[in-house]
Amino acid sequence: MQKRISIGRYLLKRLKSLGVDHIFGIPGDYVLRFYSLIEASEMIPIVTTREDSAGFAADAYARMKGLGAVCVTYCVGGLNVANPIAGAYAEKSPVVLISGAPGMKEREKNALLHHRVREFTTQKEIFDQLTVASTVLNDPLTAFQEIDRVLDMALRYKRPVYIELPRDMTDVESPYPHQLRPTQIISNSKALREALDEAVQMINRSRRPVILADVEIHRFGLQDALIKLVEKTQIPVVSTALGKSVISEVHPLYRGVYEGAVGDEKVRQGVENSDCLIMLGAFMTDINLGIFTARLDQARSIYATSEKILIRYHRFEEIVFEDFVRGLVHAPIRKRKAPKKSGSRKEELFKTQSKAPVCLKRFFQYLDTLLDEKMVVIADIGDSLFGALDLTIRKRTEFFSPAYYTSMGFSVPAALGAQLARPHLRPIVIVGDGAFQMTGLELSTMLRWKLNPIVLLLNNQGYGAERIIEQAEHSYNDIVNWKYHQIPNILGGGRGFFVQTEGELLRALENALADEKNFFLLNIQIGRKDHSPALARIGKRMFKKI
Amino acid sequence: MQKRISIGRYLLKRLKSLGVDHIFGIPGDYVLRFYSLIEASEMIPIVTTREDSAGFAADAYARMKGLGAVCVTYCVGGLNVANPIAGAYAEKSPVVLISGAPGMKEREKNALLHHRVREFTTQKEIFDQLTVASTVLNDPLTAFQEIDRVLDMALRYKRPVYIELPRDMTDVESPYPHQLRPTQIISNSKALREALDEAVQMINRSRRPVILADVEIHRFGLQDALIKLVEKTQIPVVSTALGKSVISEVHPLYRGVYEGAVGDEKVRQGVENSDCLIMLGAFMTDINLGIFTARLDQARSIYATSEKILIRYHRFEEIVFEDFVRGLVHAPIRKRKAPKKSGSRKEELFKTQSKAPVCLKRFFQYLDTLLDEKMVVIADIGDSLFGALDLTIRKRTEFFSPAYYTSMGFSVPAALGAQLARPHLRPIVIVGDGAFQMTGLELSTMLRWKLNPIVLLLNNQGYGAERIIEQAEHSYNDIVNWKYHQIPNILGGGRGFFVQTEGELLRALENALADEKNFFLLNIQIGRKDHSPALARIGKRMFKKI
Repeated sequence: MQKRISIGRYLLKRLKSLGVDHIFGIPGDYVLRFYSLIEASEMIPIVTTREDSAGFAADAYARMKGLGAVCVTYCVGGLNVANPIAGAYAEKSPVVLISGAPGMKEREKNALLHHRVREFTTQKEIFDQLTVASTVLNDPLTAFQEIDRVLDMALRYKRPVYIELPRDMTDVESPYPHQLRPTQIISNSKALREALDEAVQMINRSRRPVILADVEIHRFGLQDALIKLVEKTQIPVVSTALGKSVISEVHPLYRGVYEGAVGDEKVRQGVENSDCLIMLGAFMTDINLGIFTARLDQARSIYATSEKILIRYHRFEEIVFEDFVRGLVHAPIRKRKAPKKSGSRKEELFKTQSKAPVCLKRFFQYLDTLLDEKMVVIADIGDSLFGALDLTIRKRTEFFSPAYYTSMGFSVPAALGAQLARPHLRPIVIVGDGAFQMTGLELSTMLRWKLNPIVLLLNNQGYGAERIIEQAEHSYNDIVNWKYHQIPNILGGGRGFFVQTEGELLRALENALADEKNFFLLNIQIGRKDHSPALARIGKRMFKKI
Repeated sequence: MQKRISIGRYLLKRLKSLGVDHIFGIPGDYVLRFYSLIEASEMIPIVTTREDSAGFAADAYARMKGLGAVCVTYCVGGLNVANPIAGAYAEKSPVVLISGAPGMKEREKNALLHHRVREFTTQKEIFDQLTVASTVLNDPLTAFQEIDRVLDMALRYKRPVYIELPRDMTDVESPYPHQLRPTQIISNSKALREALDEAVQMINRSRRPVILADVEIHRFGLQDALIKLVEKTQIPVVSTALGKSVISEVHPLYRGVYEGAVGDEKVRQGVENSDCLIMLGAFMTDINLGIFTARLDQARSIYATSEKILIRYHRFEEIVFEDFVRGLVHAPIRKRKAPKKSGSRKEELFKTQSKAPVCLKRFFQYLDTLLDEKMVVIADIGDSLFGALDLTIRKRTEFFSPAYYTSMGFSVPAALGAQLARPHLRPIVIVGDGAFQMTGLELSTMLRWKLNPIVLLLNNQGYGAERIIEQAEHSYNDIVNWKYHQIPNILGGGRGFFVQTEGELLRALENALADEKNFFLLNIQIGRKDHSPALARIGKRMFKKI
């Protein structure tokens, strides 16, 4: 016989059972009752300085752990996470947004309660646009199965869901014993066999097959399956900006990041000249595909994602993405000769020019020599991302970035979420000064929880990427040049460095790597117009569009 | 014959003609073309550190100047202003949100362009919930009249509107000469006469009439009409939290802020015992009405807003709010005997106890002695607001606060908007440490534009109001104690003070008032549990609800 349980406690119990140990957010009066439940539970409420930071942190947590949660108050809290939730939707990150709300009793007179915008349903209607499922837990008869339903949707589609908890429902118990009924979606076995047979034939007949492995391989936990497939068949593999690090970048069959004509030319040729391109879990987005310079021939492609399975021009229904990928691993695909690794990368010693000013190109080259499997690299938008695409993510170093949705200010809060999700990984944050001004003070929360990210702030005194895209100077792309390295003084912890030369960069990074007790913030001076070769190429394409 | 003009230029021209000289926001690639138009125009783009700050600044600008504008890029920018726009909607502030967007040509293939969430219409659908009118300028045949239509709606309803500008439409010109056709809504003269006649009879028959003047008097520019009405009839007047400063608080007929049972008892009695309560432009919200402790008898009320005109239990249609208010001014309402001013306030000298720690009660008493007509007081949420309600706003000192929507972090960005709108007013910002951590670094932008607010940061090391409401200590209400007074060092300008005692407060404020060249940030140490009497009363009411 099941014990009776309240709606609030059941929600926490389900989250905990799905691996969520931390909930990000800011308390407010419509959600205080639930916050006191979190505090009394085994879970830890992580209070951020702003709600959007909580959203980004929960997104990163979800990317690392499979599910994340953010908990805020009604409207003033909820609407402040609209942007991070939209980003999680766009890039497939399963974040559970829990919003407190006026109690059902309070709503009866349709009163103008504080934080209310228009109707009591306004916030839910907004998040209907930004989530795969939403619910208002306004009835104990349905609340428990509603919790199960929306959590199931988050996990199935790897996208955010919205749960609104009217405050007077938090402690209401189920009127009947609630039983969790796990749902499972299974493939139509005949459709699956037909699709696999056709894929195998097409691959086996091809002479230059290439696998393009993207973000859903990561989200659905199929990295090991991918490695098996690659090693069993000896088919070379590339990734994309969004999928970068889905496979170790020193794997002998890994060829690099595909970005159409704005990326590496050898990678481009390999992909576009392939007579059988196997795209697994890919997003066909503009940034991922080099601002539409990709020339991918659908007649020579197999395209599998959680949303659709296409072979050439026809579509298969009722096939689960994971089943298709695992099916390929066990299918009779012929093994090829191990290809020669084209120009195997040497572990060159980076020679510091100690008095030379830091330039982006050499900064990324140097950083590349430092990465190891105890780090997670998180790149913000602009050259932080474009430059980072050339990093070699070794072993199983994790890498992520909002490479499709490209919301500035993601990286510092994301480091908070990432390190709480995986405490043994040290975040290496690459962020521009514009993005840092948006959310960088979230270092405050990292200090509170004794986390130790290394923040590499590339300071070009403005929105540098826009200067390149516009091919002109505009005062609206300049920002105030803060003494970022002094921020640890304000917060009362962490260590800051002002870095102008390569020598200073080297020393600061040596300090940072040797000291695991503190967070580090390096204010790295970059020339106003310094930029990565990738940004120059992308900028040229974008200039034509603005 | 009219010259042809592009969509982008026409939008700027209309905004300028309506008094908008500054546009707040952050550039991004979908809106760069329009930003370069702003830069080339007579208007000044004010780039903030974050988009939500731009939204709050535009809201404050609109409150001071009658119209404000914020300009951001698609989704990553737009969704970050969802909360400030919701606040402007809730509190009736006419903000024009301009969002760049993918070009119409780019949309043809339904591609996954960066920043896109779900559909190209997603952002517009979200803002349909948060604005009174919205439009996508996707066709030069209709774009010009659409601009006129939504601007007209913003001015008529004093609420935000949404304008989406696909980037490839910015420079497209009108195919025909466009003529602005001003619309005017006029009252039905018979309905107006009937309502005024009945109101006059009811007022003239009453013995204890009271005017409750609220925020719409301010929004519709009716302050002078209000004073005429009050002085002509000698009827006493009260305001509300949201409407505070709608009339000079040293006016002999002003009685104070009405907040139901949580406010001043004399004011409560005066309002609730009135046999004819004339509510002009009032919002019936919970915070405004003392968490529903108001006891207002509709059978003895005249209630006029831009949304409805009610006399007792019946409603009049087709009456314009301004016409009704101005009608009252000229109506034959009898003049009463000048009431005795109950216990006329003495200008007491505030005696500093120089070694005493600062407490909230005496802080507000002291601040009260400093206010003059060259200031605008902006209060953030929590005791910054509740304490400020007891300030006497003298002469025509402006005062505002998000007293209904109560979004934390409003005040510092609002000071940016307020001072750009009225450069001769110096903002006095009252803000808690929790709210300051959200948006306080916007001082950066105020430094850039050489503004000089005095920020009074009431530091109780956490979300103090929640401690009072919960009547308990919870770690989630604590935040990291920044050395806020050192922030000027980071930004490279302004002056910071660490304030523990009344003597230090006095000296810091003397410094601030004597120096008009710098912004000032006072980090004022307040006891963890210190709070205003108003918060104690409100907290007690709220505790029952959580």
